[in-house]
Amino acid sequence: MSQTTDSQNPAPRIGVLTGGGDCPGLNAVIRAVTKSLIYQCGAEVIGVEDGFLGLIEHRVRPLDWRSVSDILATGGTVLGTSNTASPFAWHGQDVSQAVLAYARELGLQALVAIGGDGTMTMAHGLAQRGLPVVGVPKTIDNDIAHNERSFGFDTAVATVTEALERVQTTGQSHGRVMIVETMGRYAGWIALEAGMAGAADVILIPELPYSVEAIAAVCRERSRARRCTVICIAEGAAVAGGGMTIERTVADSPDPLRLGGVGHVLRAQLQPLIEAEVRATVLGHVQRGGSPTPFDRVLATQYGNAAAQLVLRGEYNRMVTLQHGAMTSVDLASVAGRNRTVPTDHPLLVCARQIGVCLGQG
Amino acid sequence: MSQTTDSQNPAPRIGVLTGGGDCPGLNAVIRAVTKSLIYQCGAEVIGVEDGFLGLIEHRVRPLDWRSVSDILATGGTVLGTSNTASPFAWHGQDVSQAVLAYARELGLQALVAIGGDGTMTMAHGLAQRGLPVVGVPKTIDNDIAHNERSFGFDTAVATVTEALERVQTTGQSHGRVMIVETMGRYAGWIALEAGMAGAADVILIPELPYSVEAIAAVCRERSRARRCTVICIAEGAAVAGGGMTIERTVADSPDPLRLGGVGHVLRAQLQPLIEAEVRATVLGHVQRGGSPTPFDRVLATQYGNAAAQLVLRGEYNRMVTLQHGAMTSVDLASVAGRNRTVPTDHPLLVCARQIGVCLGQG
Amino acid sequence: MSQTTDSQNPAPRIGVLTGGGDCPGLNAVIRAVTKSLIYQCGAEVIGVEDGFLGLIEHRVRPLDWRSVSDILATGGTVLGTSNTASPFAWHGQDVSQAVLAYARELGLQALVAIGGDGTMTMAHGLAQRGLPVVGVPKTIDNDIAHNERSFGFDTAVATVTEALERVQTTGQSHGRVMIVETMGRYAGWIALEAGMAGAADVILIPELPYSVEAIAAVCRERSRARRCTVICIAEGAAVAGGGMTIERTVADSPDPLRLGGVGHVLRAQLQPLIEAEVRATVLGHVQRGGSPTPFDRVLATQYGNAAAQLVLRGEYNRMVTLQHGAMTSVDLASVAGRNRTVPTDHPLLVCARQIGVCLGQG
Amino acid sequence: MSQTTDSQNPAPRIGVLTGGGDCPGLNAVIRAVTKSLIYQCGAEVIGVEDGFLGLIEHRVRPLDWRSVSDILATGGTVLGTSNTASPFAWHGQDVSQAVLAYARELGLQALVAIGGDGTMTMAHGLAQRGLPVVGVPKTIDNDIAHNERSFGFDTAVATVTEALERVQTTGQSHGRVMIVETMGRYAGWIALEAGMAGAADVILIPELPYSVEAIAAVCRERSRARRCTVICIAEGAAVAGGGMTIERTVADSPDPLRLGGVGHVLRAQLQPLIEAEVRATVLGHVQRGGSPTPFDRVLATQYGNAAAQLVLRGEYNRMVTLQHGAMTSVDLASVAGRNRTVPTDHPLLVCARQIGVCLGQG
Repeated sequence: MSQTTDSQNPAPRIGVLTGGGDCPGLNAVIRAVTKSLIYQCGAEVIGVEDGFLGLIEHRVRPLDWRSVSDILATGGTVLGTSNTASPFAWHGQDVSQAVLAYARELGLQALVAIGGDGTMTMAHGLAQRGLPVVGVPKTIDNDIAHNERSFGFDTAVATVTEALERVQTTGQSHGRVMIVETMGRYAGWIALEAGMAGAADVILIPELPYSVEAIAAVCRERSRARRCTVICIAEGAAVAGGGMTIERTVADSPDPLRLGGVGHVLRAQLQPLIEAEVRATVLGHVQRGGSPTPFDRVLATQYGNAAAQLVLRGEYNRMVTLQHGAMTSVDLASVAGRNRTVPTDHPLLVCARQIGVCLGQG
Repeated sequence: MSQTTDSQNPAPRIGVLTGGGDCPGLNAVIRAVTKSLIYQCGAEVIGVEDGFLGLIEHRVRPLDWRSVSDILATGGTVLGTSNTASPFAWHGQDVSQAVLAYARELGLQALVAIGGDGTMTMAHGLAQRGLPVVGVPKTIDNDIAHNERSFGFDTAVATVTEALERVQTTGQSHGRVMIVETMGRYAGWIALEAGMAGAADVILIPELPYSVEAIAAVCRERSRARRCTVICIAEGAAVAGGGMTIERTVADSPDPLRLGGVGHVLRAQLQPLIEAEVRATVLGHVQRGGSPTPFDRVLATQYGNAAAQLVLRGEYNRMVTLQHGAMTSVDLASVAGRNRTVPTDHPLLVCARQIGVCLGQG
Repeated sequence: MSQTTDSQNPAPRIGVLTGGGDCPGLNAVIRAVTKSLIYQCGAEVIGVEDGFLGLIEHRVRPLDWRSVSDILATGGTVLGTSNTASPFAWHGQDVSQAVLAYARELGLQALVAIGGDGTMTMAHGLAQRGLPVVGVPKTIDNDIAHNERSFGFDTAVATVTEALERVQTTGQSHGRVMIVETMGRYAGWIALEAGMAGAADVILIPELPYSVEAIAAVCRERSRARRCTVICIAEGAAVAGGGMTIERTVADSPDPLRLGGVGHVLRAQLQPLIEAEVRATVLGHVQRGGSPTPFDRVLATQYGNAAAQLVLRGEYNRMVTLQHGAMTSVDLASVAGRNRTVPTDHPLLVCARQIGVCLGQG
Repeated sequence: MSQTTDSQNPAPRIGVLTGGGDCPGLNAVIRAVTKSLIYQCGAEVIGVEDGFLGLIEHRVRPLDWRSVSDILATGGTVLGTSNTASPFAWHGQDVSQAVLAYARELGLQALVAIGGDGTMTMAHGLAQRGLPVVGVPKTIDNDIAHNERSFGFDTAVATVTEALERVQTTGQSHGRVMIVETMGRYAGWIALEAGMAGAADVILIPELPYSVEAIAAVCRERSRARRCTVICIAEGAAVAGGGMTIERTVADSPDPLRLGGVGHVLRAQLQPLIEAEVRATVLGHVQRGGSPTPFDRVLATQYGNAAAQLVLRGEYNRMVTLQHGAMTSVDLASVAGRNRTVPTDHPLLVCARQIGVCLGQG
């Protein structure tokens, strides 16, 4: 709880905001940024409410030691977030100069922006216009470039794993095929790790188009052995060939399956080919919420502290990343718009194949 | 592990089966029936596979002490179950005499049937044709007549509560309205208890038709206070007035909302009336699976043991029930086809109202 | 969030405090008392800090709707508690008149006191001197007279059950005898229910003195079958005969076993009699902490709301209780100093015996 | 479930055993080894019971696809384990030649040995005498040389974190100092990671001797701010200076604190220096048991599969390790007897310091 201030230099003021979708561990990052800056240089930390919206609407509040003391394990973000508010396109207007003026008015020496792709792009934009920023990557999908493992991902995997275990007991009791649809529109990390942790028999990810017949064959073989089949499918997974993704399929037609998601699409594809009953569950928003796992709390704390170190060293316009197991940073400009998908020779995919998990092909 | 056998009287043979949908605690019941019968009278316990289907297809296996020793905490049923196989309507035939003959051939002195309404009706039918049966009620919805609290219900409530907590953090971070749809087609027990445990702001159950406007008013008031709104809705809940239930609404039209469930229907009803974003999650099958809570393990053990006591005392054609906190039994005939819904003056409903939870009306 | 106030009568002011040891669900009670009183009569609720100490030291704070909105699922008590501070014996002085004067000064119409035996006795004392009080019983041990099931108990049982499951896997891997000591100095409810939920092979409670030889016999028989033995022992359990309880044993001598607790005493008693390694774990304080189970949240909410109803109806000097599954109340005077222990013919004890659990005798 | 066999070459037979203390994830390793070998080369996998004891006492059993299908998430080891049975010192005799003869008799082409230091040493010994072995490192303490992260560690951290959270709520309610003692005799990994995840205010590890006065200062400062203090201490932590470790302190005297562990020693050291009540909990065996976290299931699966790949490539007398985030292997000889402790400049230690966690010094 100690803090150091230098009577000559007033305490620096640093802003913090969270942008984009909810993700377990955001509060742990906020806490670590705040504690680290207060503890190491007696900074005044200013929390910006609801992402960049708070800078647009002038809604901020101070974050002191006590206000972040009990948030390590809580889900969500105490600062609030917004998905869409951009200083560069606010109701059709570029209000970035007003935002920069407000930041100057607040006396912000720097801004720590915690968020995904969109947040990093906006942060980069403000940095180019003169506001020193440090980015902290947030993606529950684990798909940010240059970043090995994102906080929140372990928690999402745990949530999906629990769901797989739950449907497994029902599936086995009834001899059914149980489909669980996870997040992952472009990258299959969650489905892959949770599928492995939840003993899925079939794992389907966007990176590997699947054959319905191959999956049906697995189901039939397992039914013969009186076993259920558990399928873990990422929302972005699609049938191989035909050049048509599920997404396009459902976008093109007022399809009753639309709301059901790709899990229900697969169910409709699979049921005619096999005898066993097929059931699908779409996990949805529960994957984003809840208390972070201990792993994610530690990871998020390290991200937050690393961001504080960049601020303390004056290394701005960079984004904290985890590379080779260590915290480091990359230029903000090098990140935006790049996704990290699962390489088809990724060790965990290879491992899945070697222990007999079906990845959608024969 | 001790057991008593009487050299004069051979050990009695008792059959056990589980029918109907999966429910946490089934294995705990099987274990208690088996251990109690073995421990108290050295019985041979015969497990019937996949509900009545096992009696039709002659698939049984012995259950000894060891085979039930590690199943107390496991979800599902080690015996398997089937929803539909009836001795009285098997591919259009009444095969009940064949089933009775098989039971005689096996030397079954009695059959313990664990299941829901359908299973109790079939068990009663076999009882009337001469097979001594004892029923154990199973309903995750907690809606069997004469029965205060069913095993599996506490686990389902815990699963839904966790989901409510997860979406709450996301809802609060984004200022959203979050809808979670639970099981409960006719009875709202799960939505009510989980809604109370998960701090839902609005709880909607089949017993209390709801007003969309009243719910919208709650959402708007909470948004003004910068709070999210969490709504817990049972799948059987319906709009008041108009005489039209959701179920009929969606059955009558090839509605794209159908697969989404009533949660998505409410979302579509609510979104036009409020500014905050509305998101819906349908929990589905995860509510039936998983390891039973400690409470359910103890409760299921008591149900199983109570069934064994009925067998030991030769009190057949009865169903075990929990009344006034104690295990007792009722005539099988008095149960079938009756549902226990939430009385509109139930203490927990009254409590919900008194602490300001919206139950769908103004 | 609505509330009603009557312009004629000013809003009543009601105090709330929590006394005695920590217990999961305290915050749920505080929340329900507060919400119910605000929602139903627009009361001003005053939180008293650290039990009666807050009344002695004049430390109170208002509890409004928002301040209790996010505490349903949190462990501990936001008001703080104290075990020992008594208005009737504060550093050797009776300061009860000062406390009453302070309550008058605050304008408290009534005080809701949430706590155990000690708290109820003090509350009763203040009631007799003129402060209207309503008691809410709190006991993690589930041993308050006239009260079927206390909030917090289900959570403690869940914590112990999880510990039993954890040591079971280790025990089975090594073929060991694993002892887990639980809370329960006078009443064995926790050990009994958790033992049943955690599949303990031996359950030892204060109400049933145990024979070391009988337990050793169980361990030996299980070792022969290559099974581990899991023993769940309440801290108050004691060897039969000899007239000497463990407590006295350890109190009388500077025993190295003292800090280890009765679990380590049993280990020392048992190890010489059997070949398998014996290991003991004393769970301690983890049993009191953590987030309440959904069951306890609902139960605690009902306790809190019932207390508010008593206040609203002006039924003072009573304690809320759960009887025959319904909330009711008893005279405060009838509670103090009475413990509810496990009757030796309690249905769950009988059930335990009937499925072959050893209760400490042959 | 497919498998390939070559009609020319009979299926290879591979043995698997688990040795040393229980650890979450052992079953996941066994499953992956078995599935990978069956799936890739149609191997016959032979499970050896109770570590090397099974090779000494001729107790083995086949492991087929089905027998490992449901064990991914279960704690413990289905094969059993033993801490002490060594082929090189069995009741004072070297029975290694008999063990090798038995392995030949079984037709084992290779042995996969999963275990800690002791197991690796014995495996290396057998390898030198001609039995091809592959080692899989197991250490809940995360302290095996050349190995970044051990399976089971994440689960132990999660267990400790939960305990820290539980005592935190009690500590805060009472304004206490709560001490939680974790495993970690020589390496502080568990205490460090769990302390960070559980928001401990003080973390004490064997690598950093502590000052009681420095800890007392933290407690006093927090008490003044009406906050509790949570201390996470590894069992091997010791007071700085004096040259005397706790272990020696308690070994030298018949100390009543002995059974209580270092947590109780610290309590005794600290209590006289501060006003707040100090309570200690020793977690003990619960840290070794239970279902592995999803993270550990995936990690253990990768260890098991990597071991199978070594067998398939004939790379014997090596131990699988995780280095720079990837599975690789090292010579068995290079491992034995080396511990991986926490470097005093480890990034997580640095991070802890930078956010104001007390590491035992002023």
